Amino acid sequence: MTESSLQSSDSDRHARPLKFARNLLMDEPLDLERGGRLTQVSVTYETYGQLNAERSNAVLVCHALSGDSHVAKHSDEDDPGWWDIAVGPGAPIDTDRYFVICPNVLGGCRGSTGPNSFNPETGKPYGADFPVITIGDIVEVQRRLISHLGIEKLLAVVGGSLGGHMALTWASRHSNRLRGVAPIATSAALTSQALAFDIVGRNAILRDPDYQGGQYYESGRPPNVGLAIARMLGHITYLSREGMTEKFDAERFQPREVLSAFETKFSVGSYLAHQGDRFGERFDANCYMTLSMAMDLFDLGITPEKLAEAISHSDCRWLLMSFTSDWLFPPFQSQQIVDTLIAADKPVSYCNIESRCGHDAFLLPDNVAIYGEMIRAFLANLSGTEQASPNGNSIETADMESSTHSPTSIFHSRHRLDYDTIVELIPPGASVLDLGCGTGSLLARLATRGHEQVMGIEWDEQSIVRGMQRGLDVVQADLNKGLAAFSENQFDIVVLSQTLQTVMDVERVVDEMLRVGSRGIVSFPNLAHRDHRFRLSTEGRAPGIDAAEGYTWYNTPNVRFLSLYDFEDLCRDKGITIHEIVALDTTANCRVEEYPNFGANVAIAVVSK
Amino acid sequence: MTESSLQSSDSDRHARPLKFARNLLMDEPLDLERGGRLTQVSVTYETYGQLNAERSNAVLVCHALSGDSHVAKHSDEDDPGWWDIAVGPGAPIDTDRYFVICPNVLGGCRGSTGPNSFNPETGKPYGADFPVITIGDIVEVQRRLISHLGIEKLLAVVGGSLGGHMALTWASRHSNRLRGVAPIATSAALTSQALAFDIVGRNAILRDPDYQGGQYYESGRPPNVGLAIARMLGHITYLSREGMTEKFDAERFQPREVLSAFETKFSVGSYLAHQGDRFGERFDANCYMTLSMAMDLFDLGITPEKLAEAISHSDCRWLLMSFTSDWLFPPFQSQQIVDTLIAADKPVSYCNIESRCGHDAFLLPDNVAIYGEMIRAFLANLSGTEQASPNGNSIETADMESSTHSPTSIFHSRHRLDYDTIVELIPPGASVLDLGCGTGSLLARLATRGHEQVMGIEWDEQSIVRGMQRGLDVVQADLNKGLAAFSENQFDIVVLSQTLQTVMDVERVVDEMLRVGSRGIVSFPNLAHRDHRFRLSTEGRAPGIDAAEGYTWYNTPNVRFLSLYDFEDLCRDKGITIHEIVALDTTANCRVEEYPNFGANVAIAVVSK
Repeated sequence: MTESSLQSSDSDRHARPLKFARNLLMDEPLDLERGGRLTQVSVTYETYGQLNAERSNAVLVCHALSGDSHVAKHSDEDDPGWWDIAVGPGAPIDTDRYFVICPNVLGGCRGSTGPNSFNPETGKPYGADFPVITIGDIVEVQRRLISHLGIEKLLAVVGGSLGGHMALTWASRHSNRLRGVAPIATSAALTSQALAFDIVGRNAILRDPDYQGGQYYESGRPPNVGLAIARMLGHITYLSREGMTEKFDAERFQPREVLSAFETKFSVGSYLAHQGDRFGERFDANCYMTLSMAMDLFDLGITPEKLAEAISHSDCRWLLMSFTSDWLFPPFQSQQIVDTLIAADKPVSYCNIESRCGHDAFLLPDNVAIYGEMIRAFLANLSGTEQASPNGNSIETADMESSTHSPTSIFHSRHRLDYDTIVELIPPGASVLDLGCGTGSLLARLATRGHEQVMGIEWDEQSIVRGMQRGLDVVQADLNKGLAAFSENQFDIVVLSQTLQTVMDVERVVDEMLRVGSRGIVSFPNLAHRDHRFRLSTEGRAPGIDAAEGYTWYNTPNVRFLSLYDFEDLCRDKGITIHEIVALDTTANCRVEEYPNFGANVAIAVVSK
Repeated sequence: MTESSLQSSDSDRHARPLKFARNLLMDEPLDLERGGRLTQVSVTYETYGQLNAERSNAVLVCHALSGDSHVAKHSDEDDPGWWDIAVGPGAPIDTDRYFVICPNVLGGCRGSTGPNSFNPETGKPYGADFPVITIGDIVEVQRRLISHLGIEKLLAVVGGSLGGHMALTWASRHSNRLRGVAPIATSAALTSQALAFDIVGRNAILRDPDYQGGQYYESGRPPNVGLAIARMLGHITYLSREGMTEKFDAERFQPREVLSAFETKFSVGSYLAHQGDRFGERFDANCYMTLSMAMDLFDLGITPEKLAEAISHSDCRWLLMSFTSDWLFPPFQSQQIVDTLIAADKPVSYCNIESRCGHDAFLLPDNVAIYGEMIRAFLANLSGTEQASPNGNSIETADMESSTHSPTSIFHSRHRLDYDTIVELIPPGASVLDLGCGTGSLLARLATRGHEQVMGIEWDEQSIVRGMQRGLDVVQADLNKGLAAFSENQFDIVVLSQTLQTVMDVERVVDEMLRVGSRGIVSFPNLAHRDHRFRLSTEGRAPGIDAAEGYTWYNTPNVRFLSLYDFEDLCRDKGITIHEIVALDTTANCRVEEYPNFGANVAIAVVSK
């Protein structure tokens, strides 16, 4: 293979110079998945940081549809990169620690072989003769580049949107070549809606008379009207409705002044006209068609079965992230992937990050405090380096004993008798799923004790970040909606610690707990404790409220109230076996052996079905 | 003015013959809101049913962007109309009862004056010389038509989408000319996102070389590529993502066979290509541009203040409906209008109908059982005709005494002592808002007693339909999210009957109740009733559960548990004055005068702040 700096390559007809880019001309031709062969393939790429002696710190970053190899600036004087907030010294993908590689994709127009490259057989640009390529073809070129760089195993592959398709493909096909994968704001296949938008965009290019069947390079008139229409349309789908309202509503009828042959009557119209006109200056219509088609053809598995075939054998750790307002790659698509991984017992973390930025969220600074820190923790866990909590304290000492489960904890001492008891009740080495794991105190304790397979379910974003910083796998989910992804008896133990009283759908949560776990361990406050009885029968007021936490009957997070007997009734109603109930008096810091339904303020039950 | 059957009109260059349409050539020129004048204006319209002697049963139906005057078939042999499910003999807009008028809009291409009509000054079609028109101009032509038909006051104006803009404009400008208005799936102005889609569509037409600056009529080559692109794009926005998934996902890579120069690689692509190609056969590009611009310019008020200026003086009854999966005219936009009307104390009903059909939902049969019946009830209420419940029973006898409030009712007898008591506590003639009104039993009772201003808030769709069938105004809202739209002391009495114990955010609901009502009347089950005390202190089980209704601690809809004392504590905490507490023993069917917190199973409090 032949390496060169980009300036010496003439395969790129569009780019401003990428000063730090290198170009690799491959020795072997590339046989394409959908037929055809590219005899000459070159890839343009940039690297950041240093490859360590073990060659174990390399992170591959995959760009999205209109991105390029310039993921970040190489120095303060350099042009901005498209992901400076995530890649750089001290950034989440820390170039002081990691060796970052970002190639321009096959089919792209910023240096790597694409429709605007010269076809060695004709001496002219390929144009529409450029063959149909797939995400698999793109990844094959990346794989050859990685091998050329002497990297046997990547630390991670990270990519959003179309780049997420590449990340998924890496994990599906080459999971032995990476320790971890982080597909962001992506999907196993486009929704039909997203596909439809792409089709309309391609039709606008295809039917632009200047398209000339794809051979417009010599006419001097590229199909920039069609490309601009496609770009305008794409741009709408990258933003959220809320975001557009904030940006354009106030001055809806006051367009910015832009010189354009497009309609500029409205504020948003002038913006789109500008975006559309500018896009033709930096992008090639055939490349746009080629890459959007590769995205549309991407199909890792629309059905759960096919998706499982594609990824359930993977041998790496996973981090998936979606964004609540992303309607182009809606969160449920990431959740489908997560569910498939869970069903296959793969190590996965996931968060659907609250955002108003739409699909573009992963490129913007608004939510980087969450997604960036998740990536940072994920990479640290992959490389086995220590993590400090953001304030510099050790997370273990900061959180270990504090109230990190549900906000309804009735414990105020640093010593958590209920945790101690739960840990005692868990057999050594058992696999454990913690429902409502908070920042992961219990799981971290188990991990320290040597449990290898532990996992948490949690709703709060910040808690998930902290759980990941502790080295844990944590998946965001709403317990009320069930644990459908998990298979029967997937875990030895499922823990529901101080959470039962906060869920509406108790039956579902308990059913699911005992489907997924061979045994369940449930801790809950006992409403029939003598203090509560006294409160109702003598004072005539609602019992079971944790006044010490500032709660009253009208603002407690608890929505279910039960005694030890009530729990037994539930188990009887539902055919659940109670193996053991430990009744605790956490005020006296002891177990309650006699009259537990009177003397215990907390009960912990070991159950199975 | 000159009436003619449509066949004799030569102003329409595109339509298949509309056999039953008539054409009215107006005497007066039309001065347009944005400047310019149309010297000759004709309107094509169809009518259904008979105008009654009092001329009081006329319903104007306004069509959407690509609709026309043919809202329904006139006989079984006639061509289908675009809203046969809603208009016809026995249909929700029952042509056996009502005289239905549907005109083609100004600017349209199915008979009424539009860009494809001949410009009397040039003898050629207007083309792009057709002036910019507004929804106001369209409505002015409709108003002239209505006057020509001798109708002083319409029973109602009904319209969805762009037709909803017309309905809103009628209510804003001519509310003395109608008794009621039903804007469906519409908004006071487009979202910036929806506006952006329109702009992209118009740009596709505008930059189609065949557009020729709008004078393409003589070329024989209309800009059908641009029009098709616009139509494809529009079509995506009319469907929901879920709907597209159901329709296209399974056979995503198996296109239907269609002959098209557009891309037909994917199933959804072949569908869009077909839709796009066909649209040019029945629609005119200049008309599309004109009407979509009229829609984009529509601005009844983006800010709450401006919206209030536009509609708060209206003198008619309102029904608004939106659809949960409509993302082009998202539900919050209808809610903004509803909120404005509520703030202005206008009679309004509203429902956000659960649907998977997107914006098109109002044209489709899937949800007509809800939206159709709401329209039917609305029209019946406007015309003062009696309504029967769907099964033919009188609704009053069917529901009056049954458990129609929350599902947590603790009452099983047909005699509702709590209702009797609440009615007694309400001063004669007081205005009343019922939070969680169910099917409206209490309000109907008050209406019968002569209360003129009563209104309900309810969540359940079917209950809202039944409330409307009782002649009530009912607005769908989630009590947990507050009553922000209502102003201070808007009602004499706000009732919260057997609902407090089911809401999470008690403080907010109570605060809002006492902001909106001069007084509140709250009924709730008393947790400290002797039976409940016994249950906890002697049996050691959770109290307050209505076992007779089949509930247990783990499935009760109640999430808050309170005694009479607890309620008093809340009032003390929040500075709420309790004017009266009536304690009831509904088992013994009597009031409890001594030890009410021990003897009452239900308490009813009259409070204010």
